[in-house]
Amino acid sequence: MESGPPGSSRPTEPGPCLSSQQGADQAASASLQNAAAAQPGRHSLAVAAVLPAGGCGERMGVPTPKQFCPILERPLISYTLQALERVYWIKDIVVAVTGENMEVMKSIIQKYQHKRISLVEAGVTRHRSIFNGLKALAEDQLNCKPSKPEIVIIHDAVRPFVEEDTLLKVVTAAKKHGAAGAIRPLVSTVISPSADGCLDHSLERARHRASEMPQAFLFDVIYEAYQQCSDYDLEFGTECLQLALKYCCTKAKLVEGSPDLWKVTYKRDLYAVESIIKEKISQEICVVTEEDNKYVSHLLEEVLKSELNHVKVASEALCHAGRDLQQIILDQCYNFVCVNVMTSDFQETQKLLSMLEESNLSILYPVVVVSVHFLDFKLVPPSEKMESLMLIREFAKEVKKRNIWLCGLLISYPQDEQKLQESLRQGAIIIASLIKERNSGLIGQLLIA
Amino acid sequence: MESGPPGSSRPTEPGPCLSSQQGADQAASASLQNAAAAQPGRHSLAVAAVLPAGGCGERMGVPTPKQFCPILERPLISYTLQALERVYWIKDIVVAVTGENMEVMKSIIQKYQHKRISLVEAGVTRHRSIFNGLKALAEDQLNCKPSKPEIVIIHDAVRPFVEEDTLLKVVTAAKKHGAAGAIRPLVSTVISPSADGCLDHSLERARHRASEMPQAFLFDVIYEAYQQCSDYDLEFGTECLQLALKYCCTKAKLVEGSPDLWKVTYKRDLYAVESIIKEKISQEICVVTEEDNKYVSHLLEEVLKSELNHVKVASEALCHAGRDLQQIILDQCYNFVCVNVMTSDFQETQKLLSMLEESNLSILYPVVVVSVHFLDFKLVPPSEKMESLMLIREFAKEVKKRNIWLCGLLISYPQDEQKLQESLRQGAIIIASLIKERNSGLIGQLLIA
Repeated sequence: MESGPPGSSRPTEPGPCLSSQQGADQAASASLQNAAAAQPGRHSLAVAAVLPAGGCGERMGVPTPKQFCPILERPLISYTLQALERVYWIKDIVVAVTGENMEVMKSIIQKYQHKRISLVEAGVTRHRSIFNGLKALAEDQLNCKPSKPEIVIIHDAVRPFVEEDTLLKVVTAAKKHGAAGAIRPLVSTVISPSADGCLDHSLERARHRASEMPQAFLFDVIYEAYQQCSDYDLEFGTECLQLALKYCCTKAKLVEGSPDLWKVTYKRDLYAVESIIKEKISQEICVVTEEDNKYVSHLLEEVLKSELNHVKVASEALCHAGRDLQQIILDQCYNFVCVNVMTSDFQETQKLLSMLEESNLSILYPVVVVSVHFLDFKLVPPSEKMESLMLIREFAKEVKKRNIWLCGLLISYPQDEQKLQESLRQGAIIIASLIKERNSGLIGQLLIA
Repeated sequence: MESGPPGSSRPTEPGPCLSSQQGADQAASASLQNAAAAQPGRHSLAVAAVLPAGGCGERMGVPTPKQFCPILERPLISYTLQALERVYWIKDIVVAVTGENMEVMKSIIQKYQHKRISLVEAGVTRHRSIFNGLKALAEDQLNCKPSKPEIVIIHDAVRPFVEEDTLLKVVTAAKKHGAAGAIRPLVSTVISPSADGCLDHSLERARHRASEMPQAFLFDVIYEAYQQCSDYDLEFGTECLQLALKYCCTKAKLVEGSPDLWKVTYKRDLYAVESIIKEKISQEICVVTEEDNKYVSHLLEEVLKSELNHVKVASEALCHAGRDLQQIILDQCYNFVCVNVMTSDFQETQKLLSMLEESNLSILYPVVVVSVHFLDFKLVPPSEKMESLMLIREFAKEVKKRNIWLCGLLISYPQDEQKLQESLRQGAIIIASLIKERNSGLIGQLLIA
């Protein structure tokens, strides 16, 4: 399987990052610092990024340009910006958008609280858009502190899963070689047609590669190349590495990228992005409960662990001022199961919802909360509690406004141990569905295991 | 948007095909008959297909070879076989599988009732697998009526969305040119690296194409090519068109294919396939009701139509021996909404379920049935009816065995017209979710609008 999508952490938050991601970030950063430190008299490289986002997505065949297509209600480009801005050593991110999309882009930046972004007007072609971005950096048109960077990364708005590791590799290689770009093996054989639409020859697959993004350049190299290049290049060219080669004799270093770098081109790619993101934010579930209910909560946790391979299940008490829970929220867990035993009220669930509402956790991704109620259906038929449990619809409607998706789940709590295991398993299957599929149509529903 | 996935109709069923697909099929077939008729003394072309399916899917990184990965619980290769077998003029389909997967493949053919399939043992490379398939056709090893075909199609097991139109185009072109293959524009620029891992040169994107599948050949041409070609070709080659060119001087005609032809390579591609199939089988909903409930049923239908753009909503009565409903089932509608008014029993729903169980509709795709109950929550609080409505879980468990996914939905039926519209809208949103997401975790649940 291609390695999972990149960490979603936002560096500007205090105490961010899942621990594994944090480790990787630190290692990567240390290595960049080392690379920079190797340069006499310098402490860090000045790195900026340019993101051409002026395309109209005609291959997608949908009216919305693909970079603005919503994935879990958030535009695709916002995921790409998130991937770049979590890399703290990228100091500026310049996005080239068409005049007609300028306001849309501004509202995206505001809504999702993106940082270090400047906007410039896109050109009519991809190369012209990139050139506009470079000019803005060179001429210090932007209100950013470092003006001209030493290294510039060029990336696509429609490659949302770029990892810090890959960015670091191309930047380090560009520092040494003047230019660098990510490549991938070819999936299909490439052929050259003759004028009559027949096969002229086919290229040996092993001797060719697909040129992907990101790419990085010494700023002076790529800026010079764009200044020198012909109108024909600006109109019809597709490859920045080629410009650096042709106009600055700079042979780019090629860096093997991950499969996640692929370019979102067709509608099926949007489907894939959505599934990858859903999978990614379903990797951790926090089971929250009162001290008294620890036993049942623990049982559920164990069944969840065995039903959901690869998913980390953590259990936290709502008590002692919820300190640990605060940490879990900061660590960006997007799935919560609140366990209630023999009660149909929502006191505990409401405490949890308040904490989530106070945090900024749900700005980027919908947070799923399942309010689980264990009831002995023999003692208390579910219908008796239905009235009070139906209140969940009102709570759900309220928190949906903050991008928190609330559902209820009644789990039968029989005396019989074997029956209990079965109803726990049923409950776990439903919880897994709600979390993995993140189906907004089910918000406020009360399900029964 | 790339055109929707191909029709799912199975030709061996009486009265098959969605009407649009049927029209296309007829036109395509007529054109093939014409092409064949143009040949003196012949009434139709003998066409067979070879499907190499011996790969282990190492790029996917999952233990199951990708052609056997389940999509809505059915292996990917079964979708590809379905796409080929619905084309009636493909007389034989030869699948090359490894010895260890032979039994798996046999059980897939049996379970999903595939027709006209023969199995041969795969070779260690793709070219060797294809060669084995061709040998079997040439040497009449198979128990199929026409032995050596005039034209052979070569396709991939992991390209499930091949359309009849494309197959027809490559077959017609192969008849004329000796060889033909589908191509697509390149998504990424292709580059050639130098020995030191730097850019040597980049290829002009407009002058190259990706070679995709299907391809078709005069049988004698491609068989000759495989017999002549070197061990090196058989071990390391990737392109059948190249073999025809090199060993038989046959210049293949290149045919523009649709984006749906892409090759399932990474895990993200499986996600995309699943989403495309879900979208495809959600294009039609049949609202079923008793004569008495026609008014409410009609209201729901109208709201469904406005909530679900592009979805065809048909309404049918369960009465008069369900003749029209039989036709809808034959026409392969995979979504049913059974409308009940002021009742919490499942008589009507059970009638529908029996009809569905008797048909073979759910062999290939899960059929979603939503048992909708309109109740006036003021007159009858939902909790009162809960006991009897909960029986849905038992029915659901039973029909799940036949791949029918049953859910319940309670819709409030207030006197107030405006409130009714709102609860209808809520109901439609939930129905849309259940149908579009086809989430098996929700089977047997009772939802409330």
